[in-house]
Amino acid sequence: MNEKKLVYLFEEGDKQMKDLLGGKGANLAEMSRLGLPVPPGFIITTEACIDYYREGRVITEHLKEKVDEALANLEEKMGRKLGDPEKPLLLSVRSGAVVSMPGMMDTVLNLGLNEETVEGLAKMVGDRRFALDCYRRLIQMYGDVVLKVEGSKFEHIIEEEKEKKGINLDVELDEEALELLIEKFKNVIEEEIGEQFPHDPREQLFMAIRAVFDSWHTPRAQTYRKAHNIADDLGTAVNVQTMVFGNQGNESGTGVIFTRSPSTGENEIYGEYLLNAQGEDVVAGIRTPESIGLLQEAMPHLYDNLVELCRKLENHYQEMQDIEFTIEGGKLYLLQTRSGKRASAAAVKIAVDMVREGIIDEEEAVRRVKPENLEQLLHRQIDPSAKIEAVAVGLPASPGAACGEVVFDADSAAEAGEEGRRVILVRTETTPDDIHGMIAAEGVLTSRGGMTSHAAVVARGMGKPCVSGCEALRIDEGQNKFEVNGHKVSRGDIITINGSSGEVILGEVPMKDPEIGGDFQDILNWADRFRTLKVRANADTPEDARQAIELGAEGIGLCRTEHMFFSSDRLPVVQEMILADKEEERKAALEKLLPYQREDFKGIFKEMAGYPVTIRLLDPPLHEFLPDRDNLLAELYDLRQRSKKYTSHNPFENNVHAESEDLQQQKIEENLKSKEKLWEKVDSMHEFNPMLGQRGCRLGLVYPEIYQMQVRAILEAGAELVQENMNPQDIQPEIMIPLVGHEEELRIMKELVLQVVEEVKKDKDIDLPFLVGTMIELPRACLAAEEISNYADFFSFGTNDLTQTTFGFSRDDAEGKFLPYYLEQGILPQNPFMQIDQEGVGKLVQIAVEKSRAQKPAIKLGICGEHGGDPESIHFFHNVGLEYVSCSPFRIPIARLAAAQSTFK
Amino acid sequence: MNEKKLVYLFEEGDKQMKDLLGGKGANLAEMSRLGLPVPPGFIITTEACIDYYREGRVITEHLKEKVDEALANLEEKMGRKLGDPEKPLLLSVRSGAVVSMPGMMDTVLNLGLNEETVEGLAKMVGDRRFALDCYRRLIQMYGDVVLKVEGSKFEHIIEEEKEKKGINLDVELDEEALELLIEKFKNVIEEEIGEQFPHDPREQLFMAIRAVFDSWHTPRAQTYRKAHNIADDLGTAVNVQTMVFGNQGNESGTGVIFTRSPSTGENEIYGEYLLNAQGEDVVAGIRTPESIGLLQEAMPHLYDNLVELCRKLENHYQEMQDIEFTIEGGKLYLLQTRSGKRASAAAVKIAVDMVREGIIDEEEAVRRVKPENLEQLLHRQIDPSAKIEAVAVGLPASPGAACGEVVFDADSAAEAGEEGRRVILVRTETTPDDIHGMIAAEGVLTSRGGMTSHAAVVARGMGKPCVSGCEALRIDEGQNKFEVNGHKVSRGDIITINGSSGEVILGEVPMKDPEIGGDFQDILNWADRFRTLKVRANADTPEDARQAIELGAEGIGLCRTEHMFFSSDRLPVVQEMILADKEEERKAALEKLLPYQREDFKGIFKEMAGYPVTIRLLDPPLHEFLPDRDNLLAELYDLRQRSKKYTSHNPFENNVHAESEDLQQQKIEENLKSKEKLWEKVDSMHEFNPMLGQRGCRLGLVYPEIYQMQVRAILEAGAELVQENMNPQDIQPEIMIPLVGHEEELRIMKELVLQVVEEVKKDKDIDLPFLVGTMIELPRACLAAEEISNYADFFSFGTNDLTQTTFGFSRDDAEGKFLPYYLEQGILPQNPFMQIDQEGVGKLVQIAVEKSRAQKPAIKLGICGEHGGDPESIHFFHNVGLEYVSCSPFRIPIARLAAAQSTFK
Repeated sequence: MNEKKLVYLFEEGDKQMKDLLGGKGANLAEMSRLGLPVPPGFIITTEACIDYYREGRVITEHLKEKVDEALANLEEKMGRKLGDPEKPLLLSVRSGAVVSMPGMMDTVLNLGLNEETVEGLAKMVGDRRFALDCYRRLIQMYGDVVLKVEGSKFEHIIEEEKEKKGINLDVELDEEALELLIEKFKNVIEEEIGEQFPHDPREQLFMAIRAVFDSWHTPRAQTYRKAHNIADDLGTAVNVQTMVFGNQGNESGTGVIFTRSPSTGENEIYGEYLLNAQGEDVVAGIRTPESIGLLQEAMPHLYDNLVELCRKLENHYQEMQDIEFTIEGGKLYLLQTRSGKRASAAAVKIAVDMVREGIIDEEEAVRRVKPENLEQLLHRQIDPSAKIEAVAVGLPASPGAACGEVVFDADSAAEAGEEGRRVILVRTETTPDDIHGMIAAEGVLTSRGGMTSHAAVVARGMGKPCVSGCEALRIDEGQNKFEVNGHKVSRGDIITINGSSGEVILGEVPMKDPEIGGDFQDILNWADRFRTLKVRANADTPEDARQAIELGAEGIGLCRTEHMFFSSDRLPVVQEMILADKEEERKAALEKLLPYQREDFKGIFKEMAGYPVTIRLLDPPLHEFLPDRDNLLAELYDLRQRSKKYTSHNPFENNVHAESEDLQQQKIEENLKSKEKLWEKVDSMHEFNPMLGQRGCRLGLVYPEIYQMQVRAILEAGAELVQENMNPQDIQPEIMIPLVGHEEELRIMKELVLQVVEEVKKDKDIDLPFLVGTMIELPRACLAAEEISNYADFFSFGTNDLTQTTFGFSRDDAEGKFLPYYLEQGILPQNPFMQIDQEGVGKLVQIAVEKSRAQKPAIKLGICGEHGGDPESIHFFHNVGLEYVSCSPFRIPIARLAAAQSTFK
Repeated sequence: MNEKKLVYLFEEGDKQMKDLLGGKGANLAEMSRLGLPVPPGFIITTEACIDYYREGRVITEHLKEKVDEALANLEEKMGRKLGDPEKPLLLSVRSGAVVSMPGMMDTVLNLGLNEETVEGLAKMVGDRRFALDCYRRLIQMYGDVVLKVEGSKFEHIIEEEKEKKGINLDVELDEEALELLIEKFKNVIEEEIGEQFPHDPREQLFMAIRAVFDSWHTPRAQTYRKAHNIADDLGTAVNVQTMVFGNQGNESGTGVIFTRSPSTGENEIYGEYLLNAQGEDVVAGIRTPESIGLLQEAMPHLYDNLVELCRKLENHYQEMQDIEFTIEGGKLYLLQTRSGKRASAAAVKIAVDMVREGIIDEEEAVRRVKPENLEQLLHRQIDPSAKIEAVAVGLPASPGAACGEVVFDADSAAEAGEEGRRVILVRTETTPDDIHGMIAAEGVLTSRGGMTSHAAVVARGMGKPCVSGCEALRIDEGQNKFEVNGHKVSRGDIITINGSSGEVILGEVPMKDPEIGGDFQDILNWADRFRTLKVRANADTPEDARQAIELGAEGIGLCRTEHMFFSSDRLPVVQEMILADKEEERKAALEKLLPYQREDFKGIFKEMAGYPVTIRLLDPPLHEFLPDRDNLLAELYDLRQRSKKYTSHNPFENNVHAESEDLQQQKIEENLKSKEKLWEKVDSMHEFNPMLGQRGCRLGLVYPEIYQMQVRAILEAGAELVQENMNPQDIQPEIMIPLVGHEEELRIMKELVLQVVEEVKKDKDIDLPFLVGTMIELPRACLAAEEISNYADFFSFGTNDLTQTTFGFSRDDAEGKFLPYYLEQGILPQNPFMQIDQEGVGKLVQIAVEKSRAQKPAIKLGICGEHGGDPESIHFFHNVGLEYVSCSPFRIPIARLAAAQSTFK
């Protein structure tokens, strides 16, 4: 058996060895191999770290041996020795995890100094102040990182000393002051931990290695890994490297550069540097770094050298690089290279540019753009550089940012809209009566309701920013004001909302407009070539449909017919239908709705010519179309108060217009009578859990005339379009029966559909292609998918409701109440309404796919829940073998990209 | 290949051949074999019927041949011939399905008569009037059954004739009259269907056979089969048998006897007979039959003969028999025997008696008693012989019948109870405030709420009859009256409710008290020997626990701690806890609740010494403990009206007690203030779908102090009992965390429990055995059972909630609204809240059982939903491998019996 190699010299590794050498180490090794100017060093592997923990936090003799061997090699290479009083070798010890965990783990610099070597270093570089400063830095960093002395103790001493001397900057501390600091630092360590700062450089080295190992298991590192889904048993590598000094005078310096602009993606190097400084000075922010452009003037040769190295590295890695460098006495060293983080617009531009430059191919470009990048580009955003302070955070109900005057009712919003003023509509909850206000507003803010509340759903449909369920808001609509965490906001005050994060901000904030350029289109077009999943839109109106087509939709996966019922001209007719006591009355009202629905469908079919349109028949419980219970009750109490029927009339009241009193009173009595009748109906239709009540096909079964009207509207719409010369093959309705749990429900509903089809065929003499299917949104439907598939041409997974029932979560309640707590505490790894829960809900989807395909291989399977626009979920749906996802129009580009990436995995 | 035999002579078959010969045929064959006096005949098999349909409703030549052969055999045996003018053979043709379908299918008697043979018959028996009557009967029956002439046409002619002659009874019709009837009947047939009554007896025979075959597929037979789950393709056999005549004078007769009393089970024959009559005369009810006892006087020898045959048949079949007989000229014939239907009490008594008599063994006795039989014996019932008319039907929320004066509020019920009056508490819905009234009432009737409403759950717990959700009731509580389908009922009026059927009846109705005798206990004790499933009780109080033990419970499977919070002395403290703004206030209130809960548990542990007690920590959403929204809103409106804060005070109001006005006003303002605060809380806690809201462990996670208090109460109760010298091993708490969907929830809750365990151990220095587990009541919990089982000692399936989430049905809404429609229409085969839905919910249970056992073989698995008391569901739970079922105390005997029967299947 081969003994495993625990220590690698830089020149022994390469960039493929990330798992063993960590990210930083593998790249240092790679650069060394490429012959780039990297200070020599070696890497202790992640396996050594795992061994360390396995042995109970012990550095084995074997590892020490191997480190000593590598050190000897290094000493020979450098012609200096660790601890040599004449020519001391100084080292840096840095962590290097496999996956970057920025700022989470520890580093020790200037290692190898003591009372003797510090003088050797002084002589070697001819600068005793510099050497003392290095020594002071070592003791401070070592005390903090290795010995766990509180960092502020050292800072405090420095501040005291500077004050005493009347100076501002550390660099102004002279030799005497530094000697004093060194003395005091050592004393602090002894006082705090009862141990002396180790004189032996080898002891320093191994203690530092141990500290890096230990830093893998600090609570904050563990928390970070948990939050970022990084395995706990990967371990960290340790990079031991010869020190180079950017703080050795004005021919020295340190800096960070990107090979392209990380904010715009422009192909020119971008970065900052500081002369006469070590890396931590940049971090500490004591002096402001210079833009890299200025280095060209200061050290033109070195600048050119740097640019050339950047090109070389970028070409080698085929990726934009983020590089750390140090200049020591005019000589350039590279200390790190890695893929550079970038803004969304930059990500798209860099990927597309690199294809044009021949550096990467199209697949790679598609792979590199994160779907979330596109999301940012599609909506107006708060300028990322703006400093903002949120006064409250609600639910991120519809993405994008908006800013405007606060108004508290829809009419005011509509008025302001007409006057060209920008407003934010603030309401406790919105109702269908608020639609005209929502259309006019820039954004919507509510204090109640979840991600599927009326406000959220309608705003997402409109592509308008919305923050919902912001419970910190105490809205007094009557008084036109709200209070939030101590701030008072009145009508006309300016606020900004961020529908992507849920933040509410007082005042105006700088914004960035969406940037959908040619690069954006290129990436999407390339993505389309790779993906196998089709992408459809959830769209309820011809306007939505048009937008969906523009954004690349290949059909409508969910057209919710109830939204067509909410508009103000139709709602009264819908209510008439619901309040009907007899079937004929109900049918008469439905007759009035038929032409509206037919026109809706005609508009949608026209926009979607040649593409399938999945139309869901009426789903919500009927009481959703009736007035709000509480409001109605309030009106009733008020009317009863004023009615003679309930109180003996007091002659001293209402004495102003005594002559018209009778007429007024008569009106009150009539109003009361009609409101009482309405209340009776509203009360009798009240449900304890409407989510689990009489909705979906449970309506269609009990009131078949409603679905008959809807199916007739769909087919007549198609027939009329054919009469208007549209090609029948271009009209592809897919009639979807909602909330089926048992095959009998679908069998009966399908019969109903087929019967109406026959009737319309007879009436119009036109034969249209159509499918009948169901939404799979109940656990039982998944389990009985085999039986249900007998009556279905297609299944569309409604993963919103499926998540609600599988978890037993009412989304409206959970997201405003306990779900945030669950996510904060890590009880759930993510919000299952945003990303599909593969272990639970996903299993049900899988069961249903397997069972239905086994029974009916030709069945068409798709998904139309909100998860259809979430990249992780899209990967899951791709893997489970669905044919399409359907999402809101604004997420279509994201879905197209994610679907392409699914094929790469 | 053997040709299949389509026709069997009686002597060729036996009782095993039911599938082929039908139930009636197989028993006729068996009796023939035993040498009992059965008129000879033959059977056309069910396979012949299936062939008939396969051939497109054609009687094949082959079948005709076989029938002719059997007929020839019969003619030879009888020495008469079909159609012989001298000695005509007459036949009956009867259907005989495999499973009895009473009254569903057709029969033709007296077959073989025509103008000639009728005279032959007259001569043969020496009674022309008798022969003509038989002929008249044949034409009538044949016309009705075979030719589908409406039966009333014949009846009408008979009535006319009788009227003309001024006679009352058919038997008074003389020869002349009968000849006229025959003529008229034939004319009717010709007029109605344009065909003549067939003269040819062989044609009569085959037409009759065809009619019996056809009757298998009448709509009513199909409906019956669907309702009773009988396969559609079984087909019916046809029994062709020599006629014997009970209508041949006063030495003839016909009757039906049971070998034991079907209502009491007494071991003595029981039945009725009519002299000089054919079977259909008994059915027609024209003459009142005599009790069988009178036959002993009339024909003592024949009676003894009959008794002996009864014994013989009962011993042979080892089962109580229901026998049809005919006496022809003093000779006894048996026409049918089958197992007799019997009342519940009789079923138990007969089974136990037969074991004592050595006829059957104990297993057979246990097999024979239907679990539903026990249910009837456990509750007061409406006398089955009473004629009742329900004015409305609600949900059968808690079984048993009750009768009493109507009262509309709990206080009145309590008062009446103290005065010894029996009352029915009628409310829109009950709340915890009504408990004292429910205790005092005989039964509870509500117009709202489902099978899990407060009224239903509490009444079931008390074993008190309840009808809930009777939506036809229009209750005006203020006026102390209700209206129901046109009837007005006021306080003090007597009504009867049947909680087993949901019926509401005006006035008093005769009742039967429960009969739980020694036989009942014997059956249960025998059942206990066979069953492997344990049976526990759902019990929340020491009283319930005691009753459960008396009825044979082996532990408590579900102790709902929330019911302990509802009692009137605790509710204010619970509300204090909920309304607390700060954690300390909440903790202080919980401190006050702790001693109550501890006492509850002490009482229960004492009753359940030696048995496990599964205690579910708080489950319902907290707002359930707060006042009702609508009522509170009403109060608020009222108070605001009277408050100065909202209205300018009118000096002309309240002028009666002007001096005390200030004080009154002050009270109003204070009350308003506190009610407004309460409303704010109630409103902020409002949930759209409380069923899917912040309940179960979602409470325990967010407010750990509540569960901490409960766990402490459980453990301290145990510790105190040990200090009072109870054996620690006899105290077996099983702490159950409700509504877990993700393993993290249970992990955290288990940690909380273990921490409290440690604390109490330290405080009390007592080590108690205990388990920690969870209720599996969400689809996700089933799917993630593997992971969840890591933290669970036991799973208890909460199939009520699991059914709600799997179907997406809110029980409270569904049972009052669409579920009745679903059941009527056959969309669902049964109410999934009563009988477990094996195809959906059952599959999830199975998945969870398999996954959890695979991960943790020792895990304890049980079920505590209401299905735990349903026999069919119990069979399923047995088969799926659970260890116990838990049900309400009154269903324990049923569960014990059903569990035993599960082992036989």
